[in-house]
Amino acid sequence: MKKLSLFVILVLAFSCAEKKESSNTELGLTTEEKKDSTNIKHLFNTALMEGQSYEWLRDLTSNIGGRLSGSPEAQKAVEWGERLMKEVGLDSVWLQPVMVPHWVRGEKEVANYSVNGQKKNVPICALGFSIATPKNGVTAEVIEVQGLKEAEALGEKMRGKIVFFNRPFDNTLINTFRAYGGCVGQRVRGAAVCGKYGAKGVIVRSMTNGVDDYPHTGTMSYGNIPKEEYIPTAAISSRAANILSDDLKKNPNLKFYFKQSCKTLPDAPSFNVVGEIKGYETPENIMVVGGHLDSWDLGDGAHDDGTGVVQSLEVAYLFKKNDIKPKNTLRVVFFMNEENGTRGAKEYARLAKLHKETHIGGLESDAGGHTPRGFSIDANASNTALLQSWKKLLSPYGLHDLDKGGSGADISPLKGEAVTLVGYRPDSQRYFDYHHTSTDTFDKVNKRELQLGSASMASIIYLMDKYLYNNTPVKP
Amino acid sequence: MKKLSLFVILVLAFSCAEKKESSNTELGLTTEEKKDSTNIKHLFNTALMEGQSYEWLRDLTSNIGGRLSGSPEAQKAVEWGERLMKEVGLDSVWLQPVMVPHWVRGEKEVANYSVNGQKKNVPICALGFSIATPKNGVTAEVIEVQGLKEAEALGEKMRGKIVFFNRPFDNTLINTFRAYGGCVGQRVRGAAVCGKYGAKGVIVRSMTNGVDDYPHTGTMSYGNIPKEEYIPTAAISSRAANILSDDLKKNPNLKFYFKQSCKTLPDAPSFNVVGEIKGYETPENIMVVGGHLDSWDLGDGAHDDGTGVVQSLEVAYLFKKNDIKPKNTLRVVFFMNEENGTRGAKEYARLAKLHKETHIGGLESDAGGHTPRGFSIDANASNTALLQSWKKLLSPYGLHDLDKGGSGADISPLKGEAVTLVGYRPDSQRYFDYHHTSTDTFDKVNKRELQLGSASMASIIYLMDKYLYNNTPVKP
Repeated sequence: MKKLSLFVILVLAFSCAEKKESSNTELGLTTEEKKDSTNIKHLFNTALMEGQSYEWLRDLTSNIGGRLSGSPEAQKAVEWGERLMKEVGLDSVWLQPVMVPHWVRGEKEVANYSVNGQKKNVPICALGFSIATPKNGVTAEVIEVQGLKEAEALGEKMRGKIVFFNRPFDNTLINTFRAYGGCVGQRVRGAAVCGKYGAKGVIVRSMTNGVDDYPHTGTMSYGNIPKEEYIPTAAISSRAANILSDDLKKNPNLKFYFKQSCKTLPDAPSFNVVGEIKGYETPENIMVVGGHLDSWDLGDGAHDDGTGVVQSLEVAYLFKKNDIKPKNTLRVVFFMNEENGTRGAKEYARLAKLHKETHIGGLESDAGGHTPRGFSIDANASNTALLQSWKKLLSPYGLHDLDKGGSGADISPLKGEAVTLVGYRPDSQRYFDYHHTSTDTFDKVNKRELQLGSASMASIIYLMDKYLYNNTPVKP
Repeated sequence: MKKLSLFVILVLAFSCAEKKESSNTELGLTTEEKKDSTNIKHLFNTALMEGQSYEWLRDLTSNIGGRLSGSPEAQKAVEWGERLMKEVGLDSVWLQPVMVPHWVRGEKEVANYSVNGQKKNVPICALGFSIATPKNGVTAEVIEVQGLKEAEALGEKMRGKIVFFNRPFDNTLINTFRAYGGCVGQRVRGAAVCGKYGAKGVIVRSMTNGVDDYPHTGTMSYGNIPKEEYIPTAAISSRAANILSDDLKKNPNLKFYFKQSCKTLPDAPSFNVVGEIKGYETPENIMVVGGHLDSWDLGDGAHDDGTGVVQSLEVAYLFKKNDIKPKNTLRVVFFMNEENGTRGAKEYARLAKLHKETHIGGLESDAGGHTPRGFSIDANASNTALLQSWKKLLSPYGLHDLDKGGSGADISPLKGEAVTLVGYRPDSQRYFDYHHTSTDTFDKVNKRELQLGSASMASIIYLMDKYLYNNTPVKP
């Protein structure tokens, strides 16, 4: 009996663990909402049992890998995307030509300094759009600052020095994207600010919550300073940043050396990959769902943004598998060049305007492939309220966050009073562990989390397609 | 300008990404709730900036590792726990002696079969409490079933055979613990059911959502069948289960071989580790927070339940760091033997009753160290409603789930009409990837997710300590 009671405990523990999931979704719903609830359940079931996104992602990340704009890998990814969209059976699939920036990293970067006769190698990587150092590298004393204002205040004091931006993420912020937002300015504009005052180079603490040994790359901009003021800039790993900061306290005159051979080549031809399922009722109205096909070169672009790409296509796949036909045209877009230029996004929006297309809604997945938390909504007040009213349909799947907020860099150029833009918001805790670094690989993606994301996206697209249509948008 | 606009996009994207977190937590709150909101924010800030749980867990998992009841490692874990509680500065720390089952795995298990002249090795592991096979192993034909009912229906047909329980998790269930609950019966009772009918052995598909190469162990029970009917039972990896199932379709008479040398030794002495902060107002009322110190032997017991142990102690640490003194006595318990016997839990409850202790509440963390989702509540109606009224204070931290449900195997023996028991419920998607297998190691735990869990637990304990006290419990 003693041992049987163990089983009883187990059964009780798990059977009581929560309300039945199926009945849970049906409480207090109207007849129409019950139908929606059933359709949403089917979308989730299909994603979890027959979803393809995980294998698509394995293929993209393992067989193509990192795919920076203008690279041969980016071109392979375009061909991969076009082929896959056709395989899924979209009504039409086409490539949208766009010229993209073509920055190349060159040889592996080198950095080091010596303290007390001990040479320390430092993991660094050039930031996207940075110029190279002179052939023999840059060697200079280091001034540490915590941000752009502190750097500006230094003014001429930084002439001939390397400026070291070392503001860490504010780890008390629950949403790690906010911590990123509070730091990324030093990465993007550090070299522009310091180039003006004759600094020899800029090194920036990697954008991550943790302390690790990987430099995290990302884009930067020289803004409108003259070319002769351009200086090379690189990210250094967060652990190396901590060590350098400590060493500077004891050895303020230490000389830091770094060398990189990156360069910006002429713009290269590339493509957005676009496919659509024609709407059966108002095909002239378009709903777009997308992620970006390009990635940084250091890892395999798994979470950024391989997951967004495969989830976007899986939305169409889940519709087809469940024989859900959209009223409006559902368009899947793999945007090119989100990471360093958003040229694909701009070109997509330019052509939409040129061809007088009516976009009624958009959904972007570019915040990683982690467990679903919700969506952020960029829409007029009535459509925002409409989307928030779906909480009861979405919360059984862990989708509680339906706050106003931005959608994403690729669909935001479509913004307009009558356009409802939505950003998929998975859990953000692990995202910056891998962001823009060599560890952003397939093994960091959990199959169920990815599939749940596809289903979450398909569910809100299903609701937007059905109800935005009836909810006459406010015309300005 | 083109490049500066990139920066503008970045800034907009992230600053608009969500409402400000601080003001978000203050909307529509009473003065007292604002105070609570501030205290909760402090608990989170401290966990994220000065939390110790991650390093404690590294120490436990890396320097001690797996710690099955009765093992030398379990004894080391007891000493580790006692030392750590003292280091944190609890008012008193003591060991609560308890005799625990002492099952040992013995030599690494072996299993294989041949089809078409090809020998296939099969990853298996003995289930906890299983007997050994005869010295030369067991060889027999295999009958595959999908669960206990189907096995019962076979009756005498299974005599001399190996019964293969192969019901997979229902992956359409969003909460993976429910999928576990739907399958674990075959693991726990399979051998008892088949022993009765003279089967030679039982092999069970591993309890996991995925398809992997790791056998996942776990407890089983022979129930009250006579000893002579005991048969050996083992888990086989989910991938091997799929392959075996396929092979059986083509080769129904294939002979499966397995060998294991596990045995149950006499009960061994062990301990619960208990520490407390005395309540300043009603020290006679006790709130317990705990996890289990023992683990299975295959991995390092990181998610099961190292995370629960270090989070429970971190609750006390966060109280002390923030100078929050509990009104009631806050007791931290590292329970022994949750995995195969719950003897520690039973002994703790027995002593509580014997000493006429008044437990007003309890919180258990034994569902992994993943990102926080909420709590399940096992309490009377008024206390359940009270806890659910804290949603506005907890939801800014992603704690949306406050449903009625079980608490956990270690605190449920304290259940009573006046006792509010709560189970910490982190996201469940990844839990069964590691559960009871060799991959349950430190590297699978994310630092922020762990810390957020500690803070979530500290927050609900803070609220329970403050308000349960005023909320006169219903006496039966």
